[in-house]
Amino acid sequence: MSSLTRSETAHWLRDHDDFLILTHRRPDGDTVGSAALLCRGLRALGKKAHVLRNMEITEKYRHLHRDLYQDCPESGNIIISVDVATPQLLPDVFSHLSRHVRLRIDHHRTDTPFAPLNLVDAGAGACGEIVYDVLQELGVTLDKEMAEALYTAISTDTGCFRYANTTAHTFRVAAACAEAGGDLHGINQRIFETNSLGRLRLHGWMVENIRFLCGGKVAVCALPLDVERQLGLTEDDLENVSGFPRSIDGVCIAATLRQTGDGNVKISVRALPGHDAAAVCAKFGGGGHKGAAGATVKAHLEEAAAMVSMEMERLFK
Amino acid sequence: MSSLTRSETAHWLRDHDDFLILTHRRPDGDTVGSAALLCRGLRALGKKAHVLRNMEITEKYRHLHRDLYQDCPESGNIIISVDVATPQLLPDVFSHLSRHVRLRIDHHRTDTPFAPLNLVDAGAGACGEIVYDVLQELGVTLDKEMAEALYTAISTDTGCFRYANTTAHTFRVAAACAEAGGDLHGINQRIFETNSLGRLRLHGWMVENIRFLCGGKVAVCALPLDVERQLGLTEDDLENVSGFPRSIDGVCIAATLRQTGDGNVKISVRALPGHDAAAVCAKFGGGGHKGAAGATVKAHLEEAAAMVSMEMERLFK
Repeated sequence: MSSLTRSETAHWLRDHDDFLILTHRRPDGDTVGSAALLCRGLRALGKKAHVLRNMEITEKYRHLHRDLYQDCPESGNIIISVDVATPQLLPDVFSHLSRHVRLRIDHHRTDTPFAPLNLVDAGAGACGEIVYDVLQELGVTLDKEMAEALYTAISTDTGCFRYANTTAHTFRVAAACAEAGGDLHGINQRIFETNSLGRLRLHGWMVENIRFLCGGKVAVCALPLDVERQLGLTEDDLENVSGFPRSIDGVCIAATLRQTGDGNVKISVRALPGHDAAAVCAKFGGGGHKGAAGATVKAHLEEAAAMVSMEMERLFK
Repeated sequence: MSSLTRSETAHWLRDHDDFLILTHRRPDGDTVGSAALLCRGLRALGKKAHVLRNMEITEKYRHLHRDLYQDCPESGNIIISVDVATPQLLPDVFSHLSRHVRLRIDHHRTDTPFAPLNLVDAGAGACGEIVYDVLQELGVTLDKEMAEALYTAISTDTGCFRYANTTAHTFRVAAACAEAGGDLHGINQRIFETNSLGRLRLHGWMVENIRFLCGGKVAVCALPLDVERQLGLTEDDLENVSGFPRSIDGVCIAATLRQTGDGNVKISVRALPGHDAAAVCAKFGGGGHKGAAGATVKAHLEEAAAMVSMEMERLFK
């Protein structure tokens, strides 16, 4: 088990050939984009390289792997994983491959290392940034397709440069994508300027059903399972739903409560700097950070909402 | 009337002192941020510099000018405007100053030049980028406050890097802001991750009242004036309302219709690449670009919506 620098990784890649790249389950823009970038970069060096077909890849990202697929591993493949923190994050059909991964490139620290070689930088906003650095070491020039794969990776993992993990390096890498002629505006429109009808209906419902406390600085939204069903919401529609009440002008701290279907209620709290989401959740046996925290309680939805409202009002004073 | 380069502008600034900086009416992040950056940069060089107090500045941006204000022009002030394309864009109380502006720094081309010296680059995503370049020529090192003013300027004028005017240079300037220690995440949260309750209520209403045509690829939303009043919407809530129906997953082209109160209906059409908003509006005597166009018709709202729907269906086929 050893840690490589970017430059050592570049040397190692130069010394090998016939690469197969693995992505993680429920593939996001970073794992898909990083794999496409690495694969195209290696091909630009004259290497043989493929991405192992991930059946879970969605419409939004599928085109990035269009001409890069291989359907199953072959003997002789040098296997690399990108953006995969633990073997459990590999899709079920690839899980047996975790012990054959030779190199893991990632920006997540892990408690269960699985590859003999690791290039991990937890300070990178996206795994794509690390892959880009390695390709720079290898002297690869970004083309339009690489630029679009890379931009997809970094923009999706940083919420289009809005999250706290965005660094000066993230912006410099984005500049390289623009310079290489990537259609960044098109990617932004498809990924960030598009919302599902289900998610928008959910937001519409929430706006009308949020309770505001402490002069509008505290918000609580209890979302019944019945409503989720009535609106026909998918898990995609519900992704990051707890960020929504906090995004209302004037709200400093907000709780969203969802029923799990087994009599439990999941509480998610989001807070602006200067407020403490974890303190609210601690009261209910949960935890997290000041900005985002969670807890699960066995209670009726309305009962849980009343308890959370009281605790938030108490802490806010 | 002459055009200056960034380097000529830097020389001219070095040769003068006692600057007063003007911003435009309904001040946005770019004019406020550019003024703050230029003022702080000139002060860092040991110059006297102030921003003329703009009474229209809103809560969101007011802190950027906190310690920079001067209440009225003084004899001896060298007046510079930032992000002001025409004299008409100066707040009414400053309009008489347009003929005293010595230098205009802007990223808008203008038909009515008003200053003897002009540093204008229409290729810049934001005026702030140009001010930054000039300060670089002058050897100014960005501090945290300058970085936050600059980031406010570039992020607001590029929709947080999502619009087509974002360039490689925009990203490089953002990298400099991050490097200088600006709290970019805090700015993102305040400006981009916050929506007014009025705007969210409007979105909720629209989602339930949009008509989808051509299998969901075309959308039409007619917004009655009564609804705007019932929801208590401000002009700020309604800003860019026509972008909303197009943002629904699957929608390629969308029209939003609003009543003006004098019997007219304003039609705004937004389209993804590959579709033509201007072609729709041409039918109603309007115009614009492929991506965004508008027209005004004298008609009842429902009648206008029916005509627009028919035309969009016809063109879509």
